[in-house]
Amino acid sequence: MASSAIETDGQEILDLEKNRQAEKAQWVLNAPEPPSLWRELMDSARETVLPHGKRFPYLKDKDGLFKTVISVLQAMFPIFSWCRHYNATKLRNDLLAGLTLASLCIPQSIGYATLAKLDPQYGLYTSVIPPLIYAVMGTSRDIAIGPVAVVSLLMSSMVPKLEDPEANPIAYRNLVLTTTFFAGIFQAAFGLFRLGFLVDFLSHAAIVGFVSGAAIVIGLQQMKGLLGIAHFTNKTDVISVLQAIWRSVHHYWNPHNFILGCSFLSFIILTRFVGKRNRKLFWLPATAPLISVVLSTLLVYLTRADKHGVMIIKHIKKGLNPGSIHELQFNNPHIGEVAKTGLIVAVIAITVGIKQFKSILHEKYTKSTLLTFILYILLLCQMQEATAVGRSFASIKGYSINGNQEMVAFGFMNILGSFTSCYVATGSFSRSAVNFSAGCETGMSNIVMAITVIISLELFTRLLYFTPIAVLSAIILSALPGLVDPHEAYYIWKVDKLDFLVCIGAFFGVLFASVEIGLLAAVIISFVKIIIISIRPGTEELGRLPGTDIFCDVNQYPMAVKNSKALVIRVKSGLLCFANANFVKEKIMKWATEEEENDSKGKRTVQVVILDMSNLMNIDMSGIASLLELQNNLASGGMELAITNPKWQVIHKLRLANFATKMGGRVFLTVGEAVDACLGAKMAAV
Amino acid sequence: MASSAIETDGQEILDLEKNRQAEKAQWVLNAPEPPSLWRELMDSARETVLPHGKRFPYLKDKDGLFKTVISVLQAMFPIFSWCRHYNATKLRNDLLAGLTLASLCIPQSIGYATLAKLDPQYGLYTSVIPPLIYAVMGTSRDIAIGPVAVVSLLMSSMVPKLEDPEANPIAYRNLVLTTTFFAGIFQAAFGLFRLGFLVDFLSHAAIVGFVSGAAIVIGLQQMKGLLGIAHFTNKTDVISVLQAIWRSVHHYWNPHNFILGCSFLSFIILTRFVGKRNRKLFWLPATAPLISVVLSTLLVYLTRADKHGVMIIKHIKKGLNPGSIHELQFNNPHIGEVAKTGLIVAVIAITVGIKQFKSILHEKYTKSTLLTFILYILLLCQMQEATAVGRSFASIKGYSINGNQEMVAFGFMNILGSFTSCYVATGSFSRSAVNFSAGCETGMSNIVMAITVIISLELFTRLLYFTPIAVLSAIILSALPGLVDPHEAYYIWKVDKLDFLVCIGAFFGVLFASVEIGLLAAVIISFVKIIIISIRPGTEELGRLPGTDIFCDVNQYPMAVKNSKALVIRVKSGLLCFANANFVKEKIMKWATEEEENDSKGKRTVQVVILDMSNLMNIDMSGIASLLELQNNLASGGMELAITNPKWQVIHKLRLANFATKMGGRVFLTVGEAVDACLGAKMAAV
Repeated sequence: MASSAIETDGQEILDLEKNRQAEKAQWVLNAPEPPSLWRELMDSARETVLPHGKRFPYLKDKDGLFKTVISVLQAMFPIFSWCRHYNATKLRNDLLAGLTLASLCIPQSIGYATLAKLDPQYGLYTSVIPPLIYAVMGTSRDIAIGPVAVVSLLMSSMVPKLEDPEANPIAYRNLVLTTTFFAGIFQAAFGLFRLGFLVDFLSHAAIVGFVSGAAIVIGLQQMKGLLGIAHFTNKTDVISVLQAIWRSVHHYWNPHNFILGCSFLSFIILTRFVGKRNRKLFWLPATAPLISVVLSTLLVYLTRADKHGVMIIKHIKKGLNPGSIHELQFNNPHIGEVAKTGLIVAVIAITVGIKQFKSILHEKYTKSTLLTFILYILLLCQMQEATAVGRSFASIKGYSINGNQEMVAFGFMNILGSFTSCYVATGSFSRSAVNFSAGCETGMSNIVMAITVIISLELFTRLLYFTPIAVLSAIILSALPGLVDPHEAYYIWKVDKLDFLVCIGAFFGVLFASVEIGLLAAVIISFVKIIIISIRPGTEELGRLPGTDIFCDVNQYPMAVKNSKALVIRVKSGLLCFANANFVKEKIMKWATEEEENDSKGKRTVQVVILDMSNLMNIDMSGIASLLELQNNLASGGMELAITNPKWQVIHKLRLANFATKMGGRVFLTVGEAVDACLGAKMAAV
Repeated sequence: MASSAIETDGQEILDLEKNRQAEKAQWVLNAPEPPSLWRELMDSARETVLPHGKRFPYLKDKDGLFKTVISVLQAMFPIFSWCRHYNATKLRNDLLAGLTLASLCIPQSIGYATLAKLDPQYGLYTSVIPPLIYAVMGTSRDIAIGPVAVVSLLMSSMVPKLEDPEANPIAYRNLVLTTTFFAGIFQAAFGLFRLGFLVDFLSHAAIVGFVSGAAIVIGLQQMKGLLGIAHFTNKTDVISVLQAIWRSVHHYWNPHNFILGCSFLSFIILTRFVGKRNRKLFWLPATAPLISVVLSTLLVYLTRADKHGVMIIKHIKKGLNPGSIHELQFNNPHIGEVAKTGLIVAVIAITVGIKQFKSILHEKYTKSTLLTFILYILLLCQMQEATAVGRSFASIKGYSINGNQEMVAFGFMNILGSFTSCYVATGSFSRSAVNFSAGCETGMSNIVMAITVIISLELFTRLLYFTPIAVLSAIILSALPGLVDPHEAYYIWKVDKLDFLVCIGAFFGVLFASVEIGLLAAVIISFVKIIIISIRPGTEELGRLPGTDIFCDVNQYPMAVKNSKALVIRVKSGLLCFANANFVKEKIMKWATEEEENDSKGKRTVQVVILDMSNLMNIDMSGIASLLELQNNLASGGMELAITNPKWQVIHKLRLANFATKMGGRVFLTVGEAVDACLGAKMAAV
């Protein structure tokens, strides 16, 4: 009697358990309909353009018109925020930082202008207007704005295809200015319409490879100045450049240039070592380029070395930026090409300016622990509006870098730059680091720098007449090692082999073809990688983890135990689609039948194949057709197919295709339930 | 005392539970290293090329040399298998089917040859050699081999770009034969090296769209014959063709052709209805084209209608296929283009031949229940070797279609075809259906058909002199409705909107541009779709299903309950990479901080963010960097980040990047454990 009561109890529990399982299976089958494609598209578009619902959250404060205007102005021109709390101490620090910055900026600007195949003064112009505008509109205080090496290389490798800088320098310059205008427009548009994610399409690995390759190309370009070569190639790939150098060295070779360049290069590198040893002497490496320029100019002037073949800058036009709004070429037949170049330059300038800068900050402050914390907060807020989030962290962070506002600032500085004879400016890697080390407090250091450059333009251009080009080359060369990053490349290799492929694709593309091909290679490899990972037809067998009801990959968790009668399989990709469905089907069939084969050796008999769908984000028509075939194939072999944990989109499509009914209800929430239910049913049938 | 004992017990159980959880977390963290990229590549290459380990499984039977040779021959030439059991009954059925097939094949072949811009006899040639070779080497018994409409259209739209068929018909024909040769080489290579998966890259939706578009284009091309237009356009897009028709109709219009064509078209369609009503009259629709040809030829001959503007075939060259091996043009300057065309034709021919055929089988037998079962078995075995699997199902299936052997057979029939004046042949949709309805038993029906065509070529070509072209057009037109499949298109629309986009992309591409652009559009949309689905930066919040420890999407399972202190989030894509990592990070931050915002209204305070990684197949450098930023951002907001159930590749990379240690051990196997552990720790801290 008692035992029968227990049995009844057991039966009841079993029934209860069964009912619960059935209920859970119903949950899976009767999920509400997922949002339609159209609604999803609209939602994601809205989220992209309006990440926090409102453009100007200050408006809700209802503090009257005046305060509202002030708030809007503060959001658009962050200078209004920080200048209210500006004081003498900050000014002193900014003055020091700005002057240090200017001493590095002036020789670099001249060098980068020659790299971009423009007259030297255009580099100086670019160090005037963009930093001033950035100081007003930008949100970062450490970034130093001006011409940079990678963007200058980009200009000198893409624009000369449209106009020869030697044959027609004015037309070339006008195209460069037009490109700058377009770059500015694109950057401002990215910021205003929150399209910053487009910049994400250049992955970290691609940037590392691209910048390293560009640095080497830039270095090789400097051989022109360092060796005093008059006629150089217009191409940027390593082979053409090396050929040009080889040819020149054989025909014409002036050791004076080389000796001068190398000695000052050694000097700059030496000061850098000294600066690293003694943190107090941080100004020494920063001012070394200016000291080199002054010393070498004096040297050439005194020895009249220019008569002996040392190449010098000669004339630099005196005076402030001339207006250039009428020089923009909108009727040019190459306008499409120019706009394309503008887009590429815009993306690279943002990437180099914001992203690289982010990474140096990151590097620097893993060392100085106090600042780490503050700077992570900056990064945290980079992509967020000055709303609730911004406010709730305001007490810790002091200020926030706003990604979209940054892009708007970059855009405006380049648009207005293109009206005032500037080419594309962005955040410089080497100068931002100097700015930070010099202890800048606000954007004022950029203003100080710009004013210093203005004074130089007005007063000192004639003094630069005898500056040897070899020393400019040495200055550019000395800035390059910071761009090549073998450690990061090794780290990428260690963690992700395919990402490393992207990295070296960009690197060799830039090195042996052109900057465009390098970028294209990186983007294509990145997307091919996504496709390969998404459609690779891998499957894994799952086993039960001892003591749990959890099923895991038996390779990842060697302690997992396979079921002797149920083959539990999970697809190793997020998509079951035309490109992998057939393969997966085949593989599962092979697995099921091979396992069965081993039966004769007394191993196992598969009665149920359970397909865990928890990985699958989506499925297409071919995927559904394959599942159908799989089920029929298994059925004809006397096996059953069950599916578990299909995601929203998947179960929705399976329902639409009537697959769920064709499965005969063998749809479960968890693998454990599927195993119990299917094997239980089989047992009962026997 | 007692209560303290209970407490101690409770404490012990708690400790035990904690130990178990710690052990499980260790399982996650100490997973063995996943196979390297190189090993994975090698494994998948080996699996692709050698899906079942051995090429000829028969070899292991150790039955002596003779039996081995027989087995190998049987594997390569399935005819040896079935002809051993051949008998008179089967022959009678095959004879009937073959003759029915021939009566449909002869008019269709002539029509398709004119569609391909070749002389009529080339269509007949193509119905001789390829079916004979297929009968020897192919594994399917229902398929009817010969020229088909879609491939003929492909030829006439791609090859004329290289050589004008009107100006230089012989050079054009030679290029068509060379294309056929290349198509055969590619098909045989696909089969021998098991590259059939390349054909999968044309998804089901793409084929439906492409074939429907092609059918409409073919139909419009037939207006030439139906209206008796002498000068037609070489282009295939709808607009050019409609313009050509419009122009011709205005200038020259012969109602005799049109009336003749339309009356016989009506006749053929009528017989089809009769055939559908009365299954015994299946031969009526199959022979209607031949009847039409005979009647119309007689009519034209008797009335001498050709004198009144009715266009007739005129001369068809008598006699068997001439050799054409010397006509292949390997020194042609367009050889690269020809090879490319060959590749496209090869893929389309396989797709149309095998895949479409698969789908009619599927359609047909959902109606006749008995055969359904058998035919699913065929499909089951389509991609499998005649090994274990094949053998274990041998008793049910009777025979198996072997995908790779099929492709080899297709390849050889086209290679040998190109040596004997045939252009590309494949399985015909309409004729295969007729062959099946007529009750064919083996590949013998193809042989019977080929012999009938040979006899016709030898004896009856002169009788076709007066056959009106309008009737040929009517016959082609009558075969088209089977190719356009609005039901399938609607089904695709219903189940998968993006797949429908692929479908209409192919459809409109073929219709308004060209067949190549249609195919290209389909392939590109398909892959863009994969990329979009893989990188779309969706996230979903998880809640606990009542009465379980399972966490599910709160939208899919509305009964799931959110935790008030833990925000459980899962990424809705299989990859966390450069293209979506930033977005996902931002979204999670927004979520976490917005949830916190609602605190003032008394809703919830997020203390822990748990990121369920069970979806993620892989992660890249940018993804890892984003996770790191996310953790630091959350930490500065006083929240904790925990991750659960990372997959093999993901945990491996996180370990390499030292992220696992930076997480401070907050890596768990299940969401439930993570919630308990994190909130428990928080409680203890309070």
